[in-house]
Amino acid sequence: MMRERRIRVFAPATIANLGAGFDVLGIAIDQPGDVVVAERRAEPGLFFCVRTRHPDVPTAADKNVAAYVATLMLEEFHPPFGVKLTLEKRMPISSGLGSSAASSVAAVVAVNALLPGPIHRKDLLRFAMEGERKASGSAHADNAAPSLLGGACLVRRYDPLDVISIPTKQSIVWAVVHPHISIRTEDARNILPKAITLQTAVRQWGNISGLTVGLASGDAALVGRCVEDAVAEPVRGNLIPAFHEVKEAALRAGANGCSISGSGPSMFAVTSSIRMAHRVARAMKSVFAVSAGIDSDIYVSRINRTGADISWVKST
Amino acid sequence: MMRERRIRVFAPATIANLGAGFDVLGIAIDQPGDVVVAERRAEPGLFFCVRTRHPDVPTAADKNVAAYVATLMLEEFHPPFGVKLTLEKRMPISSGLGSSAASSVAAVVAVNALLPGPIHRKDLLRFAMEGERKASGSAHADNAAPSLLGGACLVRRYDPLDVISIPTKQSIVWAVVHPHISIRTEDARNILPKAITLQTAVRQWGNISGLTVGLASGDAALVGRCVEDAVAEPVRGNLIPAFHEVKEAALRAGANGCSISGSGPSMFAVTSSIRMAHRVARAMKSVFAVSAGIDSDIYVSRINRTGADISWVKST
Repeated sequence: MMRERRIRVFAPATIANLGAGFDVLGIAIDQPGDVVVAERRAEPGLFFCVRTRHPDVPTAADKNVAAYVATLMLEEFHPPFGVKLTLEKRMPISSGLGSSAASSVAAVVAVNALLPGPIHRKDLLRFAMEGERKASGSAHADNAAPSLLGGACLVRRYDPLDVISIPTKQSIVWAVVHPHISIRTEDARNILPKAITLQTAVRQWGNISGLTVGLASGDAALVGRCVEDAVAEPVRGNLIPAFHEVKEAALRAGANGCSISGSGPSMFAVTSSIRMAHRVARAMKSVFAVSAGIDSDIYVSRINRTGADISWVKST
Repeated sequence: MMRERRIRVFAPATIANLGAGFDVLGIAIDQPGDVVVAERRAEPGLFFCVRTRHPDVPTAADKNVAAYVATLMLEEFHPPFGVKLTLEKRMPISSGLGSSAASSVAAVVAVNALLPGPIHRKDLLRFAMEGERKASGSAHADNAAPSLLGGACLVRRYDPLDVISIPTKQSIVWAVVHPHISIRTEDARNILPKAITLQTAVRQWGNISGLTVGLASGDAALVGRCVEDAVAEPVRGNLIPAFHEVKEAALRAGANGCSISGSGPSMFAVTSSIRMAHRVARAMKSVFAVSAGIDSDIYVSRINRTGADISWVKST
């Protein structure tokens, strides 16, 4: 009889874009995240179930990205067993925190660990990116790469795929606030300008270079002033109720910088201590509540360098 | 009687833009460079002379940037003495190697060293930038900052001025070839597009972030593929005879990447050893000669971390 194995994988949320790093940068944070438990089954094929408190999460295997990417992997590697995949969908969808990427990443890492000959983690990215394509119509890697690999990732090119790990120091603490509204990635993408002035572009790439230096040196002041985004934030900010007040509150509470996480509605702020990050996050949450009547969740984290974490393996 | 002092300052050439770092990045190299000798004189005012083998260099004090920035400093700090300034103008003008910046930087560092209360080196940048304004109509700092401070400099913003030193490792060797033609910075600027597609901009800032990581880690392969410039090179390359053949020759000879230095006509290539840099530079020089009938000079250098160098001080 086949040896059964159960794998539990936690894949973390991510802050993509980081302001000036629009479409190319992302970092992993400690919480929230999604969990997938995968188990070998004698019967071939995928058996999929979802546990979640979020009513919008698709539970059918043909609609859910975790099941979708797991199926892609089984079709490519056709192992001599089936897989039972249980998604603990903890993250809300359309949050701006890489919810779909976390599900996809957790699924591919879990399925891979069950395979007789697992592939390298970096090579799993293309499967997770297919999950992103299913979720938003575009196979982006700026959430999937950091969720999979941890740390700060630069997605420099897609063809061929060129993902670069940016060295980081842990002195920066990120305050993340997720207001309970949802913005579809596709909608947030459609409002972007098709062209920008050279002047704006130069300003943006001055910022992303500074951001890269600041992440590497752990300089919260430098990162804070470099998250300035002259391209997406001016239009996407309009999709987030009380955006400007929330940002102002973050800066007034002591944040070094503040912008939109991914395509929103979550927002992040750059701070230099856990205490400061909590203060900033509370200030942001309070403005969402008072100015927009929206409840929100708070997460405070340094950069998560682990990425997808195989936390529990049981062989019988 | 006043104590006389003579100061000799060498200010190095610079590679601005580095491809993807258009308008914001620059590095200093060891050679070529300009030299200024400054000397206290009892009579007030500036006494200026130029030694050069380049016939295009302005020798009149009101036309030469070195005299211009020295005068600005004397007007601001009005020391109780005059200054005799001798510019050894070694670099040709309109070379793409920061010739005007080197003259300005050498002059401000020399004059500053004569002052009773010299100011910090970083604070000299604004004077050198005025020299750039005089030379090209625009007070750029992407040559002046690295020539003054050494290393790799990011000029993130002008208002307020925000210049960031990018950490560097010395494993990259730069091959620089200066063909004997001249391109006016102003002309090279006027042909740039006023706007670019968001897609091109994203590609460029993916490259500059990777370039920043690569400079910090000394990764010639990464820097080489990230110097790719989708904005200025496609138009400015047309101003350089045999540009595409020279670039191809550099890559074929083993360079990791190749682009235009500043606004040209000099070109630089990224390599991982002195030997390789010489091979690449010779290949480039040969194509300039054969395909375009243009003679050229070769410089091979790691990043110069010293910047403007006070090499000789004599008190009497």
